[in-house]
Amino acid sequence: MTPYDAYNELLRLSRERAVLASCLELLGWDELTHMPHGGVEQRGRQTTAMAGLLHRALVDSRLNDLLSIAGEHPGAVDPRSPVSVNLRVWKRTVERESRLPLSLVEELAAITTEGQQAWADARQNDDFLQFLPWLERIVELKRQEAECLRAEGNAYDALLDDYEPGAKSADLLPMFDELRTHLVRLVDAVRGSRKKIRTAMLRRAWPLYRQRLLVESVAADLGFDFSRGRIDTTTHPFFSSIGPGDCRIATRFHHTDFGEGFFATLHEVGHALYEQGLDPVHYGTPYGEAASMGLHESQSRFWENCIGRSRPFWDHFFPRVKELFHDVLHDVRVTEFHKAVNQVQPGWCRVRADAATYDLHILIRFDLERALIQGDLAPRDLPAAWNDAYRTLLGVTPSGDAEGCLQDGHWSAGQFGYFPTYTLGNLYAAQFHQSARAALPEMERQIARGEFEPLREWLTRTLFLAGRRNSANELVAETTGHAPSVKPLLDELWSRCGELYGVRAAAT
Amino acid sequence: MTPYDAYNELLRLSRERAVLASCLELLGWDELTHMPHGGVEQRGRQTTAMAGLLHRALVDSRLNDLLSIAGEHPGAVDPRSPVSVNLRVWKRTVERESRLPLSLVEELAAITTEGQQAWADARQNDDFLQFLPWLERIVELKRQEAECLRAEGNAYDALLDDYEPGAKSADLLPMFDELRTHLVRLVDAVRGSRKKIRTAMLRRAWPLYRQRLLVESVAADLGFDFSRGRIDTTTHPFFSSIGPGDCRIATRFHHTDFGEGFFATLHEVGHALYEQGLDPVHYGTPYGEAASMGLHESQSRFWENCIGRSRPFWDHFFPRVKELFHDVLHDVRVTEFHKAVNQVQPGWCRVRADAATYDLHILIRFDLERALIQGDLAPRDLPAAWNDAYRTLLGVTPSGDAEGCLQDGHWSAGQFGYFPTYTLGNLYAAQFHQSARAALPEMERQIARGEFEPLREWLTRTLFLAGRRNSANELVAETTGHAPSVKPLLDELWSRCGELYGVRAAAT
Repeated sequence: MTPYDAYNELLRLSRERAVLASCLELLGWDELTHMPHGGVEQRGRQTTAMAGLLHRALVDSRLNDLLSIAGEHPGAVDPRSPVSVNLRVWKRTVERESRLPLSLVEELAAITTEGQQAWADARQNDDFLQFLPWLERIVELKRQEAECLRAEGNAYDALLDDYEPGAKSADLLPMFDELRTHLVRLVDAVRGSRKKIRTAMLRRAWPLYRQRLLVESVAADLGFDFSRGRIDTTTHPFFSSIGPGDCRIATRFHHTDFGEGFFATLHEVGHALYEQGLDPVHYGTPYGEAASMGLHESQSRFWENCIGRSRPFWDHFFPRVKELFHDVLHDVRVTEFHKAVNQVQPGWCRVRADAATYDLHILIRFDLERALIQGDLAPRDLPAAWNDAYRTLLGVTPSGDAEGCLQDGHWSAGQFGYFPTYTLGNLYAAQFHQSARAALPEMERQIARGEFEPLREWLTRTLFLAGRRNSANELVAETTGHAPSVKPLLDELWSRCGELYGVRAAAT
Repeated sequence: MTPYDAYNELLRLSRERAVLASCLELLGWDELTHMPHGGVEQRGRQTTAMAGLLHRALVDSRLNDLLSIAGEHPGAVDPRSPVSVNLRVWKRTVERESRLPLSLVEELAAITTEGQQAWADARQNDDFLQFLPWLERIVELKRQEAECLRAEGNAYDALLDDYEPGAKSADLLPMFDELRTHLVRLVDAVRGSRKKIRTAMLRRAWPLYRQRLLVESVAADLGFDFSRGRIDTTTHPFFSSIGPGDCRIATRFHHTDFGEGFFATLHEVGHALYEQGLDPVHYGTPYGEAASMGLHESQSRFWENCIGRSRPFWDHFFPRVKELFHDVLHDVRVTEFHKAVNQVQPGWCRVRADAATYDLHILIRFDLERALIQGDLAPRDLPAAWNDAYRTLLGVTPSGDAEGCLQDGHWSAGQFGYFPTYTLGNLYAAQFHQSARAALPEMERQIARGEFEPLREWLTRTLFLAGRRNSANELVAETTGHAPSVKPLLDELWSRCGELYGVRAAAT
């Protein structure tokens, strides 16, 4: 067999796995948007079967032979070529998967399917104890998984690596500590400011149907292609990619909270633009995938915050909002509205958090999930630890666990190691924003005119089409000229809070 | 290996296949309800992969060994035991599947996925030629499939057998001919009647949202369990079972046609009650499946027509309709309304056809699809043949192919051999109705009081829990005391038309 043949066979198998994975993705999407309650048992069987098939496809002993023959492919000389990138990621994936026993893969698939229902029920009943047995079993299985996967490194890092390939918590910790210190200082400064921001208009009655019309038209203008995607409503917003022509946003609306639906949708639109912007030629291979969840979140946070809470964005879209909600906004001007959507206000809810407090929510989760995986925190003690952290860092006491440690579904889905990618995403997003402004001097004026094409094209060129060519760190450094750091995000937050609250960063 | 072990292994494999098949079912449901247009290519890959996995699972050579060992299982002595029934159906399924080459299975899965989109587009554009290449290829592949499957019998029967196991067109033809003759006579008699039925109120403005509320509450009262199912809207009504706890109805509403949404939903509720009534203990094995599509349609038509157009049904539900649509129905009484929903009126549309003309639509399709499969009709000549048949049998000329041969999606989905099961369903339904009235003398009074439990219990006992214990023919004969015949249906239709139009069957 020639290296060409071996590589082509690997390509074929990779595309085959992508199709199976996309069936699993649809099962997940349906579970969270449409599946009736009674379907959970069967859904568990379905996801177990599909996860088992995927696992078997990756531990096929033929893959190692093919990988070693394909290593001689002339395309593998350039480390940035699709051949090199694909071989590198396949090798890593096969190695990781071969460390996991099938029984663990299947049990995790089954228990996280049922666990998500158990979590949703427990949250609805505000009853942590109802969810505790599931959480205990999931943590136990994820610890087993981490033990299988870690070579010599940290157990938590073995899980983190699934979402942010190559990231190590030892590297994240100093950066996150620095961020925490500055954000606490920023929030304190805002608390001390005498300027108060009027936000009551955001909590007037916003008819749901018109909110939906609004976000659909905004999504379309930002570049979301509805012929290759759709928007549904659900209890907890998420994004799901079934294939290159089928990218699905699930969002939610609140009829007395404009920000909830609008910014949740912008967030998911950011994810969708990334996936819709990947090169379809490479679909089903690593070169056609997003490089990391941190980069994925950088796109969602970029559109939600850097663009979606900027003044040019509202200069363009405010007249449309006023047109659709003439009765709600008759006495409101764009300046007030723009201020309102930028209010800084510590609260219990991550999804609705403002850009300045958001990462404090994440840092709490990052600490707690490391403690759970390292065995330093028993699942039973989670609510107390959660509430302590919220009191200390945000000055907020959740009224119950539904507003506390049950608010997010990640852990019930087994997604330990996911949370830090949100903060990485915020850091990357601010850094991209800085570079985009430098590369596109007209950008803010274009946005104010509703022209998003140049910005989207810049993102496509610098990020989307790169697929997994580089690690997230490399890609950010290459695109922006600097390794990821907390400075661009802090600069952006201080500058915006400076305008709104008249606060200034103390000289450091 | 003992016969017990072999049987248990077959059980496990059967349940495993059912889980894969249910993933394929979800892919199909999603395609028709939610998938964006751009998703069709990926959906084709997904269904091809799943159909391939299912095929491979059935042509596994181990199955024949297991089947022959399990044949010695003591439970196999009684031919009506779950062991016997399961072994019989598994053997038949394995035999059939082993005659099909994988390439044909995969190409059919791919082309029918894409074909359904092509059909929907062509119908929207009223452009048969746009669909023709797909139809030609699908007919070609189905003919190949029939050639592979037929032992010595008729090619069409090999396909029919997938939907109505054991049925032969040679047996159906005399029964269908008799039915055709009598239905034409009945429709002529109604045409000649001087009694006209007022139906204008059905075409007033019926707000869609309230129609949805109505059918949901009616479905719940008939026994549809919403914790184990859901109702969505789509362009063409259908029913889909994802698992024992997940039965999905897709329906549609028309804002100036009450009957369209109401009776389409009742139809699908009939399917759903059958699936929700199967014994979940036997899920994933033949004993836990519906016995045939004819029996399935008997349930949909039973609730749609035998019950849903009966006077006691409307005595109970008319006040509720009036409550929800007080403005629409302020001047209408139950007697007029009951007459209106029983109007006989030949038209171009099968789904909206009344109970008397419905089977004429089916008989036309039955003739045409046999001709297509036997090679007596070229796909290109379908529109002309269709329109001729409609003129002759129903006195109707479709205004275009969207109202003609493009109105149904079955052929685009490769479902040749499905149509006759509708007529079988109508025959079985009327026969069950007769028996139910005999077995439950209080039935009509119970229905008028909104008590559907006794009837549902009778159906559960006589039909649902029987699974595939018998063939449809045997099951009907056992339940009703008579082999299937056209008499009960014709009696029911003449009796109803007698009341409404004052017509009487000529002595035969």
